[in-house]
Amino acid sequence: MAAVTFELLKESKKSLARLGRLYTPHGVVETPVFMPVGTQATVKAMSPEELEEVGARIILSNTYHLYLRPGHELIERAGGLHSFMNWTGPILTDSGGFQVFSLGDLRKISEEGVEFRSHLDGSKHFFTPEKVMEIEMALGADIAMAFDECVGYPMEYEYTKRSMERTTRWAERCLQAHHKEEQALFGIVQGGVYQDLRAISARDLVSLDFPGYGIGGLSVGEPKELMYEILEATTPLLPANKPRYLMGVGSPDCLIEGVIRGVDMFDCVLPTRIARNGTVFTHQGKLVIRNARYKDDFTPLDHHCCCYTCRNYSRAYLRHLFNVEEILGLRLTSYHNLYFLINLMQEIREAIKTDTLLDFREEFFSRYLEKEEK
Amino acid sequence: MAAVTFELLKESKKSLARLGRLYTPHGVVETPVFMPVGTQATVKAMSPEELEEVGARIILSNTYHLYLRPGHELIERAGGLHSFMNWTGPILTDSGGFQVFSLGDLRKISEEGVEFRSHLDGSKHFFTPEKVMEIEMALGADIAMAFDECVGYPMEYEYTKRSMERTTRWAERCLQAHHKEEQALFGIVQGGVYQDLRAISARDLVSLDFPGYGIGGLSVGEPKELMYEILEATTPLLPANKPRYLMGVGSPDCLIEGVIRGVDMFDCVLPTRIARNGTVFTHQGKLVIRNARYKDDFTPLDHHCCCYTCRNYSRAYLRHLFNVEEILGLRLTSYHNLYFLINLMQEIREAIKTDTLLDFREEFFSRYLEKEEK
Repeated sequence: MAAVTFELLKESKKSLARLGRLYTPHGVVETPVFMPVGTQATVKAMSPEELEEVGARIILSNTYHLYLRPGHELIERAGGLHSFMNWTGPILTDSGGFQVFSLGDLRKISEEGVEFRSHLDGSKHFFTPEKVMEIEMALGADIAMAFDECVGYPMEYEYTKRSMERTTRWAERCLQAHHKEEQALFGIVQGGVYQDLRAISARDLVSLDFPGYGIGGLSVGEPKELMYEILEATTPLLPANKPRYLMGVGSPDCLIEGVIRGVDMFDCVLPTRIARNGTVFTHQGKLVIRNARYKDDFTPLDHHCCCYTCRNYSRAYLRHLFNVEEILGLRLTSYHNLYFLINLMQEIREAIKTDTLLDFREEFFSRYLEKEEK
Repeated sequence: MAAVTFELLKESKKSLARLGRLYTPHGVVETPVFMPVGTQATVKAMSPEELEEVGARIILSNTYHLYLRPGHELIERAGGLHSFMNWTGPILTDSGGFQVFSLGDLRKISEEGVEFRSHLDGSKHFFTPEKVMEIEMALGADIAMAFDECVGYPMEYEYTKRSMERTTRWAERCLQAHHKEEQALFGIVQGGVYQDLRAISARDLVSLDFPGYGIGGLSVGEPKELMYEILEATTPLLPANKPRYLMGVGSPDCLIEGVIRGVDMFDCVLPTRIARNGTVFTHQGKLVIRNARYKDDFTPLDHHCCCYTCRNYSRAYLRHLFNVEEILGLRLTSYHNLYFLINLMQEIREAIKTDTLLDFREEFFSRYLEKEEK
C-alpha cells in the first residue's frame, strides 16, 4: 500500500475541474485543497489549533529553511516534523528547489546538484537529489517533493530545455534515493512557458510513476494568462488518478482558474504574508486595514465572513492594533485570510459537486476586484 | 448598589493574608488576584480566549496609552473598552499617573494637573483629575483609578509629603468629577517610603470612602525589603472590607510576599514582557529559552506545569521559534508565563483557605531561585 493515495471522486463535464480525496498517514484531505505554508515549522502567527479551526487539513513546510534552522537531524531526533511542531494532520515538504534557485548569485548548478551559500550566514552547502531526499525523509512529512530546478521568467528555450531534462534526471535519482514507506514522493513537471517542454517533462515523469505530480516553475513572473495556458496544456498530460499540485500559487483568482484547469493542490505564503502587512481578502476584494477610512468603522472586515476575526472584532479595532503594532493584529488578519482562502476552496468543491464552477467563477468575479485598495 | 463590592471571605491568623471576592458588573473575581496588563487594549500576543484559558478573570488597561491611541472617544463610540477589545470579563484602568510621571522632562506638574508631551509625537496634553475621569468614564472599565502622582525612589521627604497631599486633593476632585454608576473609582495611597506619610495618605483617603484602594509608588526602584516594610505598615490602615491593590507588582516572590502583607490585587507587565524576550517562569526559577543548552531538549518548559504550552511543545521547539523570530514563540511563552502567575495565585488562595501560606512560601522558595539563568 502506498503512503499516499488519491481517489478521484468526480470530473467536471464543463471544465478540467476535479473533486478528489487524498489519503495520507495523517488523515484524509478533500481536494481541491489549499495548503497554508509553515516555512519554519510554524504557519506564521498561527497555532495548530487555529489552523484546524480555519479548516486547514494539510500544511506545507520548507526543506531549505528547516535544513538551515533548526536542522533536519534535530527535527528527526524530535520525532519528525509533526511531533516537533505539534501538527497532527498531513504535511508536505517542498524540496528546497525554489528557495535555492532564488538565491541567484549565491548558487552554482551542476549535474551533480547545487552548491549554494546560506542567505543567513553565507556558509557553503551542497544540495543533491540524494541529499534532499535524506533531509526530507528526516523531516518525515507525508509528502516529499523531488529536487528540481525552478527556472525564472523570462527564460530562453534552450536553457529551459536543458534544465527540464536535468530535473527529470534528478527525479530519477530522487526515486532511487527515497526509501521511506510512510512518505510519498511527488515528481515536479518543469518546462517553463514552453508547451512542448512541459509535454516532454510530463511524459517522462509519468513514466517514472510518481504517486502525485507538482507543476513547478509557474507564477514566477509570467502573465497570469500565460500561466493558465500552460496549465491547461499540462494537466491533461498527467494521469487522472494522481493528484496535481500547482506550486506556490494562492491568490483567489488563481485558485479558481487553477481548479478549472485541473489542479488539485495549491500552496502559497500570500494570505499570511499580506495579512502581516494589514491586507485582507474580502468578498469585494482586498482591504488595507491601516487606511484612515477604517478609523471609525465598527463593522467586521468582511460582512460575508463567519470567521473568528469577523465575528468578534471591528475594522476600527484591527486598524488600532496595526497602528500600535500589536501582535494580536497580525494574528487576527492571518486567521481571516487563511479562513477566506480555505472557505473559498470549500465553495469551489461544492460548485464542482453540482458542476457549477464556471457560474461560481462568474459570480465571484462580479464582486471581487483583484486590484489592491489604494 | 455600588458598581463593585468586595466580600472578605477569610483572614489568615498567621499573616495579613486575606481571601475575598470582588463583584463587578462583568463578573466575580476571587482574590488575591493577578491582573494581566493589556496596555493598548490587548494583552500582548494573547487572544481574549487564551486569557480565559490561562485563568485571567480581570485585566488592566492603560489610560495614558489608550488616550493617545486610538483615543478614548473612539473607544466610547465602539461601546467601551470591553466591546472594542472583545473582553467580556472585568477590566480595571489605571489613571495614567504612573505613565505621565515616567515621562520625566516631558511633563510639568501644578496643582491643577500635569502638562505633558506625548512620547509618540511630542504633542502637548494636559491631564487634570477631571480630564482623567472623563477619559476613564469613556473607556468604561469596571474599576477606574484616581489620578495620582507617583513619585520615584529615592525621593526626599518634603517633596514626597507635598506630592502625597496633592494626590489626596486630586482624589477628592476625582470623586467629584466621577459619575458613572456602573464603574467603581478606587483611591491611591501614596507617601513613598515614609511610613508616617503613608499613614496620613491612608487615613485621608479612607475618610473619602472609596470602594477600594490602590497602593501606588512602590516597586519604583526601592529594595524589595523596604517595599515589604511599607506594605505591612500600610495595609492594616485600610478598611478590611475593601480591596487593596498593589500597583505594578508581579514577580512570583512579590506576589507571595504581597499577599502575606494583606494585598488582594496585583498587576504587572513582567510576565508578558519577559516572555517576549524568551524568559519563562518555572518552578525552579527563570529559564532563558534561547540558551544553547536547550537546543536538543525535548522536555517541556516546566515539568510541573499543565499549561497548553507545556503540554504540547518542547524547549527545543520554543528555542527554534525564538531563534528564527517566529510569532508563535512569543505567544507560547506569554501564555505560559501568565498561566504560571495565575496558577500561583490559585495556589496562594488554596493556601490561605487552609492557613498554610507561610509554609507554602517556604516550600516555594526552596525550589524557586529568583535570579535569572545566565
